[in-house]
Formats: sequence, C-alpha cells, structure tokens
Amino acid sequence: MSVAAPGAAVVVIGNEILSGRTRDANVQTIGAALAGIGIRLREVRVIEDRPPAIIETVNALRAQYAYVFTTGGIGPTHDDITTDCVGAAFGCEVRHDPAAVELLTRYYGATEATETRLRMARVPRGATLIDNPVSTAPGFRLENVFVLPGVPRILQAMLPGVLASLPGGPPIVSHTLTAWVRESDVAIELAAVQARYPALDLGSYPFTRDGRFGTSLVVRGNAAAAVAAAASEVADFLRQRGVEFSAEAP
Amino acid sequence: MSVAAPGAAVVVIGNEILSGRTRDANVQTIGAALAGIGIRLREVRVIEDRPPAIIETVNALRAQYAYVFTTGGIGPTHDDITTDCVGAAFGCEVRHDPAAVELLTRYYGATEATETRLRMARVPRGATLIDNPVSTAPGFRLENVFVLPGVPRILQAMLPGVLASLPGGPPIVSHTLTAWVRESDVAIELAAVQARYPALDLGSYPFTRDGRFGTSLVVRGNAAAAVAAAASEVADFLRQRGVEFSAEAP
Repeated sequence: MSVAAPGAAVVVIGNEILSGRTRDANVQTIGAALAGIGIRLREVRVIEDRPPAIIETVNALRAQYAYVFTTGGIGPTHDDITTDCVGAAFGCEVRHDPAAVELLTRYYGATEATETRLRMARVPRGATLIDNPVSTAPGFRLENVFVLPGVPRILQAMLPGVLASLPGGPPIVSHTLTAWVRESDVAIELAAVQARYPALDLGSYPFTRDGRFGTSLVVRGNAAAAVAAAASEVADFLRQRGVEFSAEAP
Repeated sequence: MSVAAPGAAVVVIGNEILSGRTRDANVQTIGAALAGIGIRLREVRVIEDRPPAIIETVNALRAQYAYVFTTGGIGPTHDDITTDCVGAAFGCEVRHDPAAVELLTRYYGATEATETRLRMARVPRGATLIDNPVSTAPGFRLENVFVLPGVPRILQAMLPGVLASLPGGPPIVSHTLTAWVRESDVAIELAAVQARYPALDLGSYPFTRDGRFGTSLVVRGNAAAAVAAAASEVADFLRQRGVEFSAEAP
C-alpha cells in the first residue's frame, strides 16, 4: 500500500446498484462537488453489502487516497452494516454516541425513539458526527473516512457540511466544446493539444443526435488559464477545419 | 488473490464519470442483464484513464471474478487506451486484427478508413471480436475479460451477443414491495424474514414521496420459489401491521 496520494475515492455500498434495480446518482454529486473545491475523485468502488467486502475496501482505499467517502448502509435495518464495518476496519468499538442519541430522541420524541431507530446513533468511538439537516440521523467522519447515507436527497443536504471541513483549493475547471464532427476526424489535432498541455485532461466523447455524429471535447484541469488556452487551441483547429461547434466555459 | 469466484465485475474506464460530467448508465444495464441470466454483478470499479490504474484493476478483478467487463476507452482518440492496457495486463501483443480491419474498411469505405479509424481494429493477439451492430468498431473478449465501449447505446446493442456467449443459469429474480411505512418501523420483522431465508437478499430502501415516508422492500435471489415465499411473508407482516403497500413481482 502506498502513502496517501492527493485525491479521493468513493465506496458505494450498494446491492441495489449492482443488481441494476437502482441507477447510482451519488457518484456524480460527489465527483462534481469535490472538483468544485479542487479535489479530484480518482476511484469509485461499488461493492456488496457484505462485511469482508466493506472492511477490505475501506482499508485499501483509506491508505491509498487522501479522503474516502462511503455511501449507503447507515439506516436502521438489518442490511445497514456500514457503521459496524467501518468500526471494524479501524479496530474501533462502535457504541451509541450520546450527542446522536439526544438528537434522534428530540427528532422522534421519547416514545418513538425506539431501540431500532437509536441504532442510527451508533458510531465508532473517536468519530466526529456529520450533520444531517433532513432526517437528523448523522453520518460520521473517522480520520480520512466520511460515512454518508445512500439516499441522494439526504446525501446532497449533508455534503456542504462535509466540504466545509476540507481544505479547499482552486476548483478543477473544464471547458466543453460540442462539435459536429466524428471524433476520429479530429483525433490527431486533439492529441497534439494534449501533448502541449500534459497537466490537463483532454477527453473526447462521441455522440449522435438527430442522426448526426458529434463529439464533446472536454478540457479539464486545476489551472484555469491553461484550461482556457488549451480550449482555445481546440476551438482554433475546429474553425480551421470548418467544423460547426458550440463552446461552454465554466 | 483468490481463485475466480462466481459472479462478475465491471471496470468503468471513465474520467468523465469521476469528474461528475457524466452520470454512468452502463452499470445498471450490465447489472440487470447479467441478473437475467443468473450471473451476479459483485463489484464495480470506476477508474481514471491511466495505464497503471487500468492494468492493475483488470488483473486484480480477472483473478477474482468469473467475468470482467470493461466499458470505455476503445475509440480512436488519444484518450482511448483500454485496448493497449488490457493487452499489457495479459502480456499479449496488440496488433491490427485482419477481420476487424476488413469490417471497418467496408463500413467507412477505403478512402475514409484512415489510420486513426483503423486504430479501432487493434486488439490483443488471441482475442475474439465482439460484434458491434451500431458502428462496426468491435469490442473483444480475451479469456474472461470482455472489452466494451462506453457509449450506452452501442454497449446496449452489443450486450445480447456477449450474453449469448455465456453459460446461462436461472435468472436472479426480485419482488419489490413498496410500503408506506418508515423502514425503522418494520426493521425487526424484516430481519426475522431475512434470518429465515439466509440465501436471499432482503433490502430496505427508504424514500419520501409527496411528503410521505415510504420504504421499498426488495427480496432477491436465484431460487424463484423461495423469493416468492419470502415476499409473501413480508406482505403478511405488512398486512398484520395495517401498512398500505403495493407489490411488484417479476
């Protein structure tokens, strides 16, 4: 295992994603949000709701990346095993957090704050709670691992609090040029621009719309000026080739 | 590394997924298609378009799972590096496949079948081509690794051919009960049903709709009779509790 590198990973704990029942939405949310504060999402693993899979994956990724975000499996039912698995991954006892118990008891009321519901107040010892402005049940952070729920609406509401706790950097920006050309017809020019800007990512994504072939050309990186310059070189060769295109800057 | 276990993995080669620019659609397509022929998708990794990431991930997963499917990175541009990386993972030389060259030359016509476009005819030696009924550029299979494109429409068109080449089994089926109840209010009963059917997966997915709390209760497994029996036990306890619900069988 290598030393923690910059960048982040997401672990989606999700039988429902693997089975095809549900199409994941959280990876896109987290990827875009991290890019906004200059952190690159570098790997995602979608794994089964099984303790060995969760424990091994969390341990592998927390050693490899600066930040790890898990989604899913922190509710009150039998298939919610993420908290115990993250505790096991760190060798930390999982117990009822007094502050979380108080939050949930206030939210549900004393009689409705059942043993089942208070399971959602269990976190590993040493964890910091992550505020849940929608349904109270908190997430938590343990070292560089952030444990978040799977319900997209709740995850989205919790994310600003998480991002505010991270050291921000200049955002990763991208310019997209949507060009009415087959990608094979601009491959050589595009590779030449990529070669001149090795620190940026130039991506090429073909599509068809109304029976026409098109390609989204995406220039992406941390250095806004370089991104703008490379995008302008792409626009130049498209113009020279007489290709119709539209450009979308950040 | 363990001996290949039943089940499959998907490797999404996708800077555009990690950046949040694009929401992946292929995992859901592949997960559901595999379930239809009794193969469980057990892990997905979304990784960067970087050779070490691709080579290491393909090698780790092909040793661990019966089948591995890669998506993305087999087009004609500089960022299409999947074929070379899969070749490197297997230690196989990548060269122009004569049959693929012929297919692409016929598709584009002799003058338009440029060197750039014929890059899409390169496959590792020993690979079997996978037919692409949309845009001709083939995928390929090398041992237990299937290399597919990232464009969802093309992937979807190629998948039936891939599935037909796999040994089919009884489909993995699921029953979904959509119940107007908080999941914490049925957690104990649900755990009891799960305990009686350890070979099945019982999942519980909360949602809110029109301000009401609901939970999707999903029973899933290979044995259709057991799935039906467990779903009927779930329906029974919902009725006993007076919970409004609708059921959706396969």
